[in-house]
Amino acid sequence: MRPYVIINAAMSADGKISTKEHRQTKISGDQDFARVDRLRADCDAVMVGIGTILADDSSLRLKNPDLIAERTAAGKTEQPMRVVIDSRARMPPDGDMFKKGTGQRVIFVAETAPPDRVAALAEKATVISAGTDKVDLTLVLDKLGEMGVKKLMVEGGATLLWSFTSQKLFDEIRIYVGALIIGGTDAPTFVDGSGFTRAEGFTRLALKNVEKIDDGLLITWHKKEE
Amino acid sequence: MRPYVIINAAMSADGKISTKEHRQTKISGDQDFARVDRLRADCDAVMVGIGTILADDSSLRLKNPDLIAERTAAGKTEQPMRVVIDSRARMPPDGDMFKKGTGQRVIFVAETAPPDRVAALAEKATVISAGTDKVDLTLVLDKLGEMGVKKLMVEGGATLLWSFTSQKLFDEIRIYVGALIIGGTDAPTFVDGSGFTRAEGFTRLALKNVEKIDDGLLITWHKKEE
Repeated sequence: MRPYVIINAAMSADGKISTKEHRQTKISGDQDFARVDRLRADCDAVMVGIGTILADDSSLRLKNPDLIAERTAAGKTEQPMRVVIDSRARMPPDGDMFKKGTGQRVIFVAETAPPDRVAALAEKATVISAGTDKVDLTLVLDKLGEMGVKKLMVEGGATLLWSFTSQKLFDEIRIYVGALIIGGTDAPTFVDGSGFTRAEGFTRLALKNVEKIDDGLLITWHKKEE
Repeated sequence: MRPYVIINAAMSADGKISTKEHRQTKISGDQDFARVDRLRADCDAVMVGIGTILADDSSLRLKNPDLIAERTAAGKTEQPMRVVIDSRARMPPDGDMFKKGTGQRVIFVAETAPPDRVAALAEKATVISAGTDKVDLTLVLDKLGEMGVKKLMVEGGATLLWSFTSQKLFDEIRIYVGALIIGGTDAPTFVDGSGFTRAEGFTRLALKNVEKIDDGLLITWHKKEE
């Protein structure tokens, strides 16, 4: 049974997730940060692409002690499983994700990833091979389901979100739209990758909810049923 | 007195205004098309950048006969003034904008635009030189104000909207967010151009309204007062 997949991200009013130099940018505010932490705490696993780790050295961990206490009181691990999609095993073995917080880290790599890097990562994390040259997300979701993940939060970045949305491998999108313009032909957007060229291919959504948070809006879309 | 400037555009849920091949894409629906037509009819002038004309050969005209009749009944011209920002005078003299609809067409060019092309355009439109190598939008707005334009609608594209938003030369942004994902690193977004690199530069907005239209959302932002 595949997990229920929630894509969560924040973009500027013009669809950018950071500046063209990939500088991390504050798009929302305290109220939204609290919402994202709550969502992390409610999920069994949180996932990012390797690009996001390399840009931000994110630890992906839940920080709020109240939410950690809430999880343990409910018989869960302190932290949701932390998952990285990393076809070529580029994950730095000294990354913050390994240093901070407790719990299982899972790195999905492709079968053709360099064996020495895979071996180095295997000392720090559960490394799973899924897909030949590139990690196959359908295999990833099946595997996570087998591992007991019922609810998965996918936090980005833009390339991984293209894989999830173009293959329709998601249930919900929660996108925070911030009260600012970043601009830039070369700035990363909410969904990058190769992009659709024909209207027939577009991933269609159904609007579920919109609410004001901080100075912007949280829009919740569901995947539109065909 | 400069006109009140309303930027109006439509983007996908991931901030794209068309595919990476700049193929024109239906992002909203009939209810939103009617809204845009109403907004056009309520403005004294509508403006696009030359890139939009070259991509779509848009006539920029008001088509709805009821709205045209309403304008004339109110003592206005059938069509709002149609304005193109075209630094190098690349506007095709046989474009649809000159063939369809009545009323004044105004092309703003830079002083260094090729004189032969400027002369060809001057037979079809009011050509105004504003700025040395590139059209200077502050001069444009001053000039339009002198010409009696009180309310200006700016329809894109992404490069012109970068100029307007980065220079804070607007009052409102009305952005329709459609229920679809287009994706693509190279797809044009709502605001392209060079982009901000520092948070201090970001153009800040204030949320004014959000409403459901067709399957998506219309978000109205105002420029945030400093």
